[in-house]
Amino acid sequence: MQEVISILMIIGAFSFAISGALTAMQKKFDIFGVVIIAFTTAVGGGTIRDILIDRDVFWLVEPMYIYYIVTGAIFAIIFRKRLNYLRKTLLVFDTVGLGLFTIIGVDIGLSLELSEISCVVVGVITGSFGGVMRDVLVNDIPVIFRKEIYATISIAGASLYLVLKLTQLNTTLTFLIPVIFIIILRFIVVYFEISLPNIYKKHN
Amino acid sequence: MQEVISILMIIGAFSFAISGALTAMQKKFDIFGVVIIAFTTAVGGGTIRDILIDRDVFWLVEPMYIYYIVTGAIFAIIFRKRLNYLRKTLLVFDTVGLGLFTIIGVDIGLSLELSEISCVVVGVITGSFGGVMRDVLVNDIPVIFRKEIYATISIAGASLYLVLKLTQLNTTLTFLIPVIFIIILRFIVVYFEISLPNIYKKHN
Amino acid sequence: MQEVISILMIIGAFSFAISGALTAMQKKFDIFGVVIIAFTTAVGGGTIRDILIDRDVFWLVEPMYIYYIVTGAIFAIIFRKRLNYLRKTLLVFDTVGLGLFTIIGVDIGLSLELSEISCVVVGVITGSFGGVMRDVLVNDIPVIFRKEIYATISIAGASLYLVLKLTQLNTTLTFLIPVIFIIILRFIVVYFEISLPNIYKKHN
Repeated sequence: MQEVISILMIIGAFSFAISGALTAMQKKFDIFGVVIIAFTTAVGGGTIRDILIDRDVFWLVEPMYIYYIVTGAIFAIIFRKRLNYLRKTLLVFDTVGLGLFTIIGVDIGLSLELSEISCVVVGVITGSFGGVMRDVLVNDIPVIFRKEIYATISIAGASLYLVLKLTQLNTTLTFLIPVIFIIILRFIVVYFEISLPNIYKKHN
Repeated sequence: MQEVISILMIIGAFSFAISGALTAMQKKFDIFGVVIIAFTTAVGGGTIRDILIDRDVFWLVEPMYIYYIVTGAIFAIIFRKRLNYLRKTLLVFDTVGLGLFTIIGVDIGLSLELSEISCVVVGVITGSFGGVMRDVLVNDIPVIFRKEIYATISIAGASLYLVLKLTQLNTTLTFLIPVIFIIILRFIVVYFEISLPNIYKKHN
Repeated sequence: MQEVISILMIIGAFSFAISGALTAMQKKFDIFGVVIIAFTTAVGGGTIRDILIDRDVFWLVEPMYIYYIVTGAIFAIIFRKRLNYLRKTLLVFDTVGLGLFTIIGVDIGLSLELSEISCVVVGVITGSFGGVMRDVLVNDIPVIFRKEIYATISIAGASLYLVLKLTQLNTTLTFLIPVIFIIILRFIVVYFEISLPNIYKKHN
């Protein structure tokens, strides 16, 4: 199981690196700017998680992540035209990263015996704060606050994982089902343009 | 005394949650965005403090805060029209949070035997960095840098607390006097539109 | 050697404080805003470094830095006209801070026996994230992402330091050569308007 999680973390880091690099290229950053935004997006959530729960920061302990992320950024730079052509590419990579990192975050919270609510918060932070840091650094309002009920989905997936943990399901499925749940739910939400109930007055 | 501080921390967290929620609603964030900005505003300063001094992050240890904050955000959402009607509401809640969190921060610094100047800095960070994070996340220049000599008041209150600590005053009063001092001073400053001496050339 | 580093750190903190104060004054912040932006610029990179590697935060342990930084900010406020007159002043102070803090960061990484790549990343963070925080707080896109191949130079200097460490050179020279390398390289880059290869389509 630990190897599965390691592989999924690499996929998540790689996905977030691409999502960060694409955002930075939209803003016409130079090559280094693209790499550093890719890096921040990929490690931001996990770094904040590790600092909050006073664990060694994962990419300092396992510096291989730095290479995966730089590879992801270079991949995005090389294939930038092709990636832009597939208009939803940024969304796909961002969503895969969100799903994987949310559940990894909840899992680490559980291993430290945090309360359920804290595990959910740690999961949401792990999954979404890389994207928040990306958006703050490129001077946008973080997308999770404005659209696509992004973090709500992250919370739903984290809660599903906590529920599945109580069942007899095998650990790989327990892990993968909420990841896939998050990914599918986000695609549905984006496709059908579902949003949270509007709490503001309509202009009509 | 510890119970008094606990109750005051809850009031402070609740106040900052409302201030964050009101700011997010001004920016037309969706419900989750409102909750997360409320959360960041309420725990931001204390979280940075706990990370800086390498203490367990308070809301991970006592997850009840998460519920208080969500309650504060929901309260702000439900009563948003009434709260907006009272135009100074945001200021009131922000100021109560500032006063309480500044002095709690100084107190924690003292308990770790930091130097006086470090205690003041830790107090100011505890009191004002939730608001800084709120403003950065909604893509404003933090209000404490531009207006109302906000942090200057926080420094003044923190210093007053250090002075009162040297006296024989009972601990509850020693704690409450600087809190009330900060709150009243900020209202005076806002009411009379006092600002720090202008260091720029006048346009005349 | 330790005394040399201490003195260089003070010079670096003072330089970054001036660079932060000048930026804040361009944005017409009030006096306190100027001081806090100076503070953030001067301690931001080192604070993130200390948090990442779980070291005591340097300015809480040695609060004298707080005084040096406030002195730097006041110096910048008093001499603001003269400093603005020298148009490149901000660049000079920023570059001196970048060079010193990068190499100090790498050195601390080495002392903790981090991998080479992690040492370089820690050095770049120490050298450049004070400036990143300064720019985020004043609501600009961080200059290191957009111009002057700032961080690329920081990486080059950090790598040079790692190489020199393998030689028999005396420790003071090993330390100072990459610092001076960073400073000179940045001036050359700015003077000749060198930039990284453009990865975007030209408009012609």
